Amino acid sequence: MLKNFEAMAELVKANPVKKRIVLACAHDEHSLDAVYEAYQEGIVEPVLVGREAEIRKIMADNGFDFGGSEVIYDVDDDIECAKKAVSLIREGKGDFMMKGKMQTADLLKQVVNKETGLQVGKIMSHVGIFEIPGYHKLIMQSDGGMIPNPDLEQKAKIINNAVETLHNMGYEEPKVAVLCAAEKLNPKVPESVDAAALKEMNEKGEITGCIVEGPISYDIALYKEIADFKGFDSPVAGDADIVITPNMAAGNILGKSWSITAGGTMAGMIVGAKVPIVLTSRGATAEEKFYSIVFAAAGSSSN
Amino acid sequence: MLKNFEAMAELVKANPVKKRIVLACAHDEHSLDAVYEAYQEGIVEPVLVGREAEIRKIMADNGFDFGGSEVIYDVDDDIECAKKAVSLIREGKGDFMMKGKMQTADLLKQVVNKETGLQVGKIMSHVGIFEIPGYHKLIMQSDGGMIPNPDLEQKAKIINNAVETLHNMGYEEPKVAVLCAAEKLNPKVPESVDAAALKEMNEKGEITGCIVEGPISYDIALYKEIADFKGFDSPVAGDADIVITPNMAAGNILGKSWSITAGGTMAGMIVGAKVPIVLTSRGATAEEKFYSIVFAAAGSSSN
Repeated sequence: MLKNFEAMAELVKANPVKKRIVLACAHDEHSLDAVYEAYQEGIVEPVLVGREAEIRKIMADNGFDFGGSEVIYDVDDDIECAKKAVSLIREGKGDFMMKGKMQTADLLKQVVNKETGLQVGKIMSHVGIFEIPGYHKLIMQSDGGMIPNPDLEQKAKIINNAVETLHNMGYEEPKVAVLCAAEKLNPKVPESVDAAALKEMNEKGEITGCIVEGPISYDIALYKEIADFKGFDSPVAGDADIVITPNMAAGNILGKSWSITAGGTMAGMIVGAKVPIVLTSRGATAEEKFYSIVFAAAGSSSN
Repeated sequence: MLKNFEAMAELVKANPVKKRIVLACAHDEHSLDAVYEAYQEGIVEPVLVGREAEIRKIMADNGFDFGGSEVIYDVDDDIECAKKAVSLIREGKGDFMMKGKMQTADLLKQVVNKETGLQVGKIMSHVGIFEIPGYHKLIMQSDGGMIPNPDLEQKAKIINNAVETLHNMGYEEPKVAVLCAAEKLNPKVPESVDAAALKEMNEKGEITGCIVEGPISYDIALYKEIADFKGFDSPVAGDADIVITPNMAAGNILGKSWSITAGGTMAGMIVGAKVPIVLTSRGATAEEKFYSIVFAAAGSSSN
């Protein structure tokens, strides 16, 4: 278990092999800034795909000195940048990918291309990881960005992706809370039926490498004293590593409530393709961009 | 608009006519404590249904002195308490209802009874109202407790209930944000289609007395600077009075994130029946119980 983002950064730094980040459309000061910070911290080595002259100018203007370790592929067009970044990953020349100054859809279109893309038979889902006030460790949340209304099978795959990401970060058996509005199975509430089914799949060995609890309410999943008060006994209660929301809207709203209203810090990425993909939005803070890079470095598979 | 719970309490106190709270299964120290506090503050007059001897003992033991204004109906059995409380409301002898020491289901069963209950042709929905750090006023959220997966028609009724509650509290035209994961209409995401439809119903005069915006993301609905950064122009952006979540799970999780993780304060009740019904859980704090009574007093119709 990781207590906070600092512990996550230390984990990555302790790895003797630095992860290579492939930045698509790297002619972007904000993204390069985050990559440079991660480089300075010993987190990543940069593989930059984009307009080389612009990239070099941004580096010079801002003093981004990668000590000559940077690999730059001079590509002009956005779509071509995406294609090149994807092909570099396919060739094993990068450990994870990040979107620079381009549309998310343009990058994902290349990722999901059946012949030249990065799909490996899994679902692609968003995982966010958060440092939130009052919680004793990092908490992961999924899916808040990719699958609007997942069915049972998709939820199982969402759990697998989240669990695999934490395994890559050294967790042995993450605790997974399948959130519902209440902790009781109610046949009239489909998400509670799914939650109970996911717990059963875990008990039967169909979902492995983790402990799944559900249906479980938010307050019980995160707060041991509330679980005790309500008489809910489970190793996951008050100690969840991963919360799975019943749908994307719930995940998205919860993540934003944590990171904006509750004063938390977040990092996020897409998992389930050959490598993690960092897709921070224009509005993301520098901190969110940096920690998302750390998260992808920590959660990518060769760790 | 009400800045905080204190302003809400002041609003109720300024009303020359005190609201009568009907407490079902009033032989409960925690509930009586909250009712007594509200009585002392000039918020309510107590109508107590339950075991009179136990009620009198709790009052004496705790010094709950209602100055003789209390009306007590001596009823032993839980179900009979529920029936009596409901009939008192039907007879106009109370302005809202609160659950004491009994099962929620036992009370609601009497409320929804077609012949002797309190339904008035509306949907029954849960409304929560919150004071959250960093937001400039109270914010209402619905539905986080009654309707697992509302369809479009049910969502319109959920909005109507929430809006009517704020009208009772003196709001003229509350701003309603129909939350989705993103602010774009996506035909593949049903809740975004519903959100756009609700906005249109508002523009066409089918949902009245409010301004509806949707689909709109959480961060844009609550934070003006994010709305500005993302170029989202709407009177609701950064100034929502009501947020409508696409489903109950999202509402429930958001409410708990606000009240527990973000350090907010909440009050909640069921609306859509003849009168509001306060159903705070065993685990609710004294503060939540008190403010829920204030909320029901403020939001009930004769205000």
